[in-house]
Amino acid sequence: MKRVESLGERKIIDIILKRLEQMPDTPIPFGDDASALDLGDGKLAVIKTDMLVGKTDVPSRMSQWQAARKAVIMNISDLAAKGAKPIGLLVALGVPRHFTEKNIKEIADGLNAGAREYGTYVLGGDTNEASDLVISCAAFGTADRKALMLRDGSKPGDIVAVTGSFGRTSAGLRILLGHASCPARLRKKLVDSVLMPKARLNEGLTLAETGAITASIDSSDGLAWSLHELSRASNVGFVIDNPPIAEEVADFAKAYKVNPIELCLYGGEEYELVVTVKPGLFERASKKVSLIRIGKATTQRKLVLKVNTRSVPIKARGWEHFKTALSKS
Amino acid sequence: MKRVESLGERKIIDIILKRLEQMPDTPIPFGDDASALDLGDGKLAVIKTDMLVGKTDVPSRMSQWQAARKAVIMNISDLAAKGAKPIGLLVALGVPRHFTEKNIKEIADGLNAGAREYGTYVLGGDTNEASDLVISCAAFGTADRKALMLRDGSKPGDIVAVTGSFGRTSAGLRILLGHASCPARLRKKLVDSVLMPKARLNEGLTLAETGAITASIDSSDGLAWSLHELSRASNVGFVIDNPPIAEEVADFAKAYKVNPIELCLYGGEEYELVVTVKPGLFERASKKVSLIRIGKATTQRKLVLKVNTRSVPIKARGWEHFKTALSKS
Repeated sequence: MKRVESLGERKIIDIILKRLEQMPDTPIPFGDDASALDLGDGKLAVIKTDMLVGKTDVPSRMSQWQAARKAVIMNISDLAAKGAKPIGLLVALGVPRHFTEKNIKEIADGLNAGAREYGTYVLGGDTNEASDLVISCAAFGTADRKALMLRDGSKPGDIVAVTGSFGRTSAGLRILLGHASCPARLRKKLVDSVLMPKARLNEGLTLAETGAITASIDSSDGLAWSLHELSRASNVGFVIDNPPIAEEVADFAKAYKVNPIELCLYGGEEYELVVTVKPGLFERASKKVSLIRIGKATTQRKLVLKVNTRSVPIKARGWEHFKTALSKS
Repeated sequence: MKRVESLGERKIIDIILKRLEQMPDTPIPFGDDASALDLGDGKLAVIKTDMLVGKTDVPSRMSQWQAARKAVIMNISDLAAKGAKPIGLLVALGVPRHFTEKNIKEIADGLNAGAREYGTYVLGGDTNEASDLVISCAAFGTADRKALMLRDGSKPGDIVAVTGSFGRTSAGLRILLGHASCPARLRKKLVDSVLMPKARLNEGLTLAETGAITASIDSSDGLAWSLHELSRASNVGFVIDNPPIAEEVADFAKAYKVNPIELCLYGGEEYELVVTVKPGLFERASKKVSLIRIGKATTQRKLVLKVNTRSVPIKARGWEHFKTALSKS
């Protein structure tokens, strides 16, 4: 009998999904970033749970405050990707016996800070003893049914765009893990991307209202993986001709002789939104939200990176529990 | 600086609650069994998260299927206590590396079974690597604002009642932990109370409609603790003159020379509802839901057990993480 460590997170999820009876007529299909329930009058409740585990999600130099804040951001980000406004959060906490009162205070303050940063509140929760720090948040939000952004609406010809550049977390994690030192001018931005992630909530809510977005996903498992998820759900391919490498990432890559495209595509724990946009509405949408055009959707279900005259496949690789260690660089 | 093991779960929760900004005008006060959000037109979203951790919540003879089902029941029970109908569940899962594919299938089946038993569905979730099994469910339900049952409405003179008898889980856990053997005729009922708990959902929904209930709580931390919580929230005392000892618990107590009242009051992981009822409506309510009258609410904020002519205080003791081991008997 196979152990989970050889299965990997995606296979485990597939096994679980196959065994769960599905609610009929849910507004968001199983396996999208979040789930939804119909509240009537065109309104949806959009709900999401995402768990942060100390061992796998918290680099050693991340404070408890930052870890708790991040646990909130992870959930807000998924609501943002669907165009849902967060209303309230629940937090189930697993705390190791050796934690101190100070740790608990930091965690509480981090949860509160994350919630307030996005205009929402922690409404309740549950506290437990656990072997490792576990912060499991559930976010509750609302959305207009007609504005909801799913993963499955990309059409060939759509423009692929992102709300910001990529690669900082890959570089930042290398620095945090001591795999690379870095000049101070780069260090802060790269490390902060890991320690203080931001959810693109305003961007998600604004994009949802434009009617220009055909599919949307956050990039918590990395850009390449997010593109593969959109491709799978929408049954299209993508040609990416403008990989959105952050400026500091290009500098970092040059200094440490690593491939900037690797850092850009195959990171994770990034929270930019990856969207496909109706070509005729791209300009209008990008006036409201700063969007980087990175490529376009194609009929053939292949993911290709085209830089200069070279084409290389974009692999379905990204952050995966049981398969990726925190030293994932 | 104090470690959490010396603080205990309640003190940790107090520390956290003090540091969280509270949402103004929430329909359910912070610290009740569940949280709520106003959906307009007298409707509320009622949400709850409760985490199950292998080390502290799963006795060694409980199967993964049973553990997963229990994780669902824990959450449904809190909705039931508020008179909220569960609509959907989210599940964040922490899985140790050594778990097998078979374990995962059992967990998925147990989650599904628990959800379907109460007419609801698992809508989505998250899978992570963790040191110990962690099943963190979040339940989403709806309730009519006017039918909502809180903890803080008990009035002196109200009748205290429960939806079933108590003590089975205390006895069952002793048997499961090998602290007591037991004749087969008792064993199954006692052990099943631990392995296959039931949430009193129909009872909660029906009681909420009667308008007879002034306060309600589930009894997952034990009967004594639940009474103390109602007392604290409602600022009343209770005289309990009819401790609801289950028949098998009385038999078990006699055979093993333990105090049946201890088993009845100071257990935990029970899911009967503990309610206070307007005296004039008790008869009508108990025609719709089988209720055991166990005592009455008093002005003086003391909890007293009165059996025959003896009065003893009911202690604020129950299941508490960091303070209670699984060998809590």
